[in-house]
Amino acid sequence: MNRRAFLTAGVSVGLAGPAMAAGAGEACAPMRGTGDLGLIIERATGSVLIVDVGAHKTLSRIEGLGDLSHATAVFGPSERYAYVFGRDGGLTKVDMLACRIEKRVIQAGNAIGGAISDDGALIVASNYTPGGIKVFDANDLGELASVPAIGANGKPSKTVGLVDLPGRRFAYALYDADEIWIADFSAGMSPALTKFTNVGRLPYDANVTSDARHYLAGLFGEDGFAHVDLWADKPEVTRVVSGYNAGREKLPIYKMPHLEGWGQSGSTLVLPAAGQHEVLLLNLETMREEARIPAHSQPVFCVARPDGREVWINFAHPHNNTVQVLDVFTRKIVHTFQPGPAVLHLEFTPRGHEVWISVRDADRIDIYDVRTRTKKAEIAGVKPSGIFFTARAHRLGA
Amino acid sequence: MNRRAFLTAGVSVGLAGPAMAAGAGEACAPMRGTGDLGLIIERATGSVLIVDVGAHKTLSRIEGLGDLSHATAVFGPSERYAYVFGRDGGLTKVDMLACRIEKRVIQAGNAIGGAISDDGALIVASNYTPGGIKVFDANDLGELASVPAIGANGKPSKTVGLVDLPGRRFAYALYDADEIWIADFSAGMSPALTKFTNVGRLPYDANVTSDARHYLAGLFGEDGFAHVDLWADKPEVTRVVSGYNAGREKLPIYKMPHLEGWGQSGSTLVLPAAGQHEVLLLNLETMREEARIPAHSQPVFCVARPDGREVWINFAHPHNNTVQVLDVFTRKIVHTFQPGPAVLHLEFTPRGHEVWISVRDADRIDIYDVRTRTKKAEIAGVKPSGIFFTARAHRLGA
Repeated sequence: MNRRAFLTAGVSVGLAGPAMAAGAGEACAPMRGTGDLGLIIERATGSVLIVDVGAHKTLSRIEGLGDLSHATAVFGPSERYAYVFGRDGGLTKVDMLACRIEKRVIQAGNAIGGAISDDGALIVASNYTPGGIKVFDANDLGELASVPAIGANGKPSKTVGLVDLPGRRFAYALYDADEIWIADFSAGMSPALTKFTNVGRLPYDANVTSDARHYLAGLFGEDGFAHVDLWADKPEVTRVVSGYNAGREKLPIYKMPHLEGWGQSGSTLVLPAAGQHEVLLLNLETMREEARIPAHSQPVFCVARPDGREVWINFAHPHNNTVQVLDVFTRKIVHTFQPGPAVLHLEFTPRGHEVWISVRDADRIDIYDVRTRTKKAEIAGVKPSGIFFTARAHRLGA
Repeated sequence: MNRRAFLTAGVSVGLAGPAMAAGAGEACAPMRGTGDLGLIIERATGSVLIVDVGAHKTLSRIEGLGDLSHATAVFGPSERYAYVFGRDGGLTKVDMLACRIEKRVIQAGNAIGGAISDDGALIVASNYTPGGIKVFDANDLGELASVPAIGANGKPSKTVGLVDLPGRRFAYALYDADEIWIADFSAGMSPALTKFTNVGRLPYDANVTSDARHYLAGLFGEDGFAHVDLWADKPEVTRVVSGYNAGREKLPIYKMPHLEGWGQSGSTLVLPAAGQHEVLLLNLETMREEARIPAHSQPVFCVARPDGREVWINFAHPHNNTVQVLDVFTRKIVHTFQPGPAVLHLEFTPRGHEVWISVRDADRIDIYDVRTRTKKAEIAGVKPSGIFFTARAHRLGA
């Protein structure tokens, strides 16, 4: 189905019509800045919306991106091209100005996210099947390297928690091998590998702080996080916030929390607890737990407002109609509201005057004024999930 | 002189030719991303270069911007338009895609920088003559507000250290009145003003941390800084790092250090000392001095690498041919080099793989690989000073 046919289909079910610009050709603006573009995943239909963030307007819908049920995106430095990583191993380069797919490859059988090197030249995908990572040329998506993830246990492993580090380096965790690796491509496409073993049972996701210093992996097989201080002369793994479920019933987990969206406020990191109705505050100076804040339900994303003063939190099914606002400075939940059914993601504008919230089961993206916490606009989308603004192009560890 | 005539003139003195793209029309690319554009001030000729940061290439030169001897620039959220604040009170909106001046106004007799609101709607200029600030519509540069700066002493004051804060707010210091003001335009163009008096003698420049929390003004009339914690329930001014010249000879100051370029690394702020050959390390948790690091000469800009691990420092005349690299983590100067005569400014690419250095008296901008610290390219420019990449559009307090 081409894009025009899809648009028609969208209109026919009454979803896409109102939000779309008048004509597809007209919407594909040839001359405009790209700093205020966004890409929104429509998870059920393998499509993405390209949006004008300032104008609160959909510019185009691009389809044919495969299984986007757990999709993520990164942007090239010019903020014209998006790279979308699908669950089915598809890697799609989208030209957001021309409103079309520039190139698409199926690079694995089952994948879980990706990253882009600090110079914008390398796209790296993290794979479940067959595991390991693969490196692609950002221009033409030609494969440059494939790095299997064979742990000390001799078995191939799923890789998770992939992030970029300065100097064409990438960090990731080996779920089946309890390891964390750093791959350094600065000298060429045969990377120097640094391996940390026995980091803790089953690292399921990870992230790095915005200064690319602290890499933290959540552990599925035990309560706590594995931590690496990447600035140390000889980095090593330590366990932090261990045993936060000790002496308490661990609740059944319907959705594992995401670490991609953790909130950083000064030297405090806000982490979603797995199996508890709370968020954990970790002090980055001491690497000790500062506090536990009771929350509405099991948190999924803890997203910091760009200044870090507040962290906005969404929750796992069946309590995923709600968002809470934590004032990190006073450590109080200061606001609770219900945007609608199945809030899947939140994205702040780069300097934090708005937050965009995808409400999947209402087929809607809501736009809130952050200061007044009131809804100011909405746009239509078919089962929207991840929201990605181009400002991410300029961040480390994105 | 129009742009084409200027180009010819540039070629005739052997400066502009080599770096310019083949044709002016061709260089003004109608369809391209704007996330990797930059604007470089040519201070002596009232012109700016628009550069393609990824390609290491000048796209165009735009002239007619007046006196740029102490110029600065901010970018609109789309990263297409730059707003250049000249020393002569000129405010110029530059269309970087069309390579032309979109609009230009003379808004004051003598000005010193500006800022843009978090939503991109308001451009604010900070003025020496007649003092105070003025607010302009980002679209057409129509004047929306003029806020005189009459201090408690009853006299109009120069304003300095203007920064944007979340929620259409701006902070600035009153040089002649020893005050700091916050103007809040969230409810309209008659701002709510918060005034702090007796902040210290002659605040000459100021900045806010990247989380828009700590506002710090350097004091010309005494040793030290005035500090406001903007997150406090009732913000107040305290003096920090007071008396750092005590018991020591204060050297003659050829150029006041800039606070716009201070370096932040975790909770450590690296500040240029005025009148000493050293930089000061301030801990943001305690607001106490952590260390003083001896440096090559009197520092001007202390610019943090985007991850904050290193701060690159340039120096005042007559030692301004040198740059030093401070490893903030180990508190050691790890590298000293001489890019050339009169290093005026440094700008890192958004994720820190390169740093661009303007070498005024060599009529050159040098591009260094940050990891290897080696020069990888250079472009020509006529007496280049400030270098501004569009990624600044996405930062608070820029």
